[in-house]
Amino acid sequence: MKVSYFHVAGEVPDTINGPDGPDAAVVIDVLRATTTIAWALHNGAEAVQTFADLDELRAEANSWPDEQRLLVGERGGCKLDGFDLGNSPMSVVPDTVKGKRLFMSTTNGTRSLHRVREVACVLTVALPNREAVAQRLINDQPEQVWMVGSGWEGTYSLEDSLAAGALADSLLAAGATVANDEMQAALALWSQWKDNPEACLRIASHGQRLIRLGDHDADFQRCAGLDQLSVVPTQAEQGVLRAVSG
Amino acid sequence: MKVSYFHVAGEVPDTINGPDGPDAAVVIDVLRATTTIAWALHNGAEAVQTFADLDELRAEANSWPDEQRLLVGERGGCKLDGFDLGNSPMSVVPDTVKGKRLFMSTTNGTRSLHRVREVACVLTVALPNREAVAQRLINDQPEQVWMVGSGWEGTYSLEDSLAAGALADSLLAAGATVANDEMQAALALWSQWKDNPEACLRIASHGQRLIRLGDHDADFQRCAGLDQLSVVPTQAEQGVLRAVSG
Repeated sequence: MKVSYFHVAGEVPDTINGPDGPDAAVVIDVLRATTTIAWALHNGAEAVQTFADLDELRAEANSWPDEQRLLVGERGGCKLDGFDLGNSPMSVVPDTVKGKRLFMSTTNGTRSLHRVREVACVLTVALPNREAVAQRLINDQPEQVWMVGSGWEGTYSLEDSLAAGALADSLLAAGATVANDEMQAALALWSQWKDNPEACLRIASHGQRLIRLGDHDADFQRCAGLDQLSVVPTQAEQGVLRAVSG
Repeated sequence: MKVSYFHVAGEVPDTINGPDGPDAAVVIDVLRATTTIAWALHNGAEAVQTFADLDELRAEANSWPDEQRLLVGERGGCKLDGFDLGNSPMSVVPDTVKGKRLFMSTTNGTRSLHRVREVACVLTVALPNREAVAQRLINDQPEQVWMVGSGWEGTYSLEDSLAAGALADSLLAAGATVANDEMQAALALWSQWKDNPEACLRIASHGQRLIRLGDHDADFQRCAGLDQLSVVPTQAEQGVLRAVSG
């Protein structure tokens, strides 16, 4: 297994859907989309369907029974008007999400999911389900794994790189090899912060942005909580993620 | 002093020449342009003039006395046809470069120099003159310092990030603060590899490329040799770098 990491959707090579492309793609948006996806599916959501475009999201959600849907949307760290939930992993508790489909759009995470949507196996990872995703990949042994971060409006993010390093650390222990420079650097980042990932999330520029918005301590704790969930969000059809146990 | 790092020219924000832009820009191309520039100026070259375009390079060089010029050019790690030297820091010995102007174009490094050319203070750094450049910045105390890597054909490179981390490490010890996520990650990289930077250069994808071309051991040693030179390559006029002692 060879593992590569690309910081943002825009840096994913155009070879992604060709013969040199990956057998598995893993999307990362630590603050907070893929953390929220993991917790929502763990807490019993039927699926999470992601959208880059808000009009498409509303049209698709409207075709769904009212009591079985939730609109989840965030821009710039704040909940969208008319939506049921923002992007906080604290909000997707069982009473709220059980049996429902989440129609989700976020500032950055959905772009990366869209970019990799045609890869044979598409997963999402965050720190809480890092080991579950690692075990799935170790079992499946895809030849090429591409991790794709989400970043902030097209630029590099520290926290996604941290999680890429965390996942790679588990994969390398099981014999995987590093296939690009971005992956090497992410491993160094994980090596430096693995004993206190929350501190890394808090110094990251998007962490600083959330701190300025206020009242996100529980979010930080949840987003930094390593290896707590066994759920592996897996693309079942394009744009639709379902829970599979790791 | 606030220090930021951008992986490649293409990631440098368009605010670079506005009021929020940097007071100093530091260009990095460890393998091998900025290492070669440092050694050439240390060894007595009159100046290094850089070009993105080869026709412009030839036209400008032709206006210079034959015995006072050297054409330095590389594409894909190999010397360009009709040029005097490739991009090796081993080739710019005193007997070859003393008193001469080097007209230089390289695959990646010259793009980043071009991108920052209008900043008030433009320096180049590599591992051999890391501390000299740090001391210059500590003396001058620019408010905002932007480091810009060169990468490989527009993508991230490990070795430039390593040197960005090395320079930042010295600046932070003198009171500078980190201003973006890329800089934080570069510091983690330096922290991991500072006792053996040559090993980091060798695992980098461009290092692997040079190893495949063969016979680059002396280059690796020279490019990884930390704090050996006191020269600070400084832009004197657009595109022209001259030696200033740190």
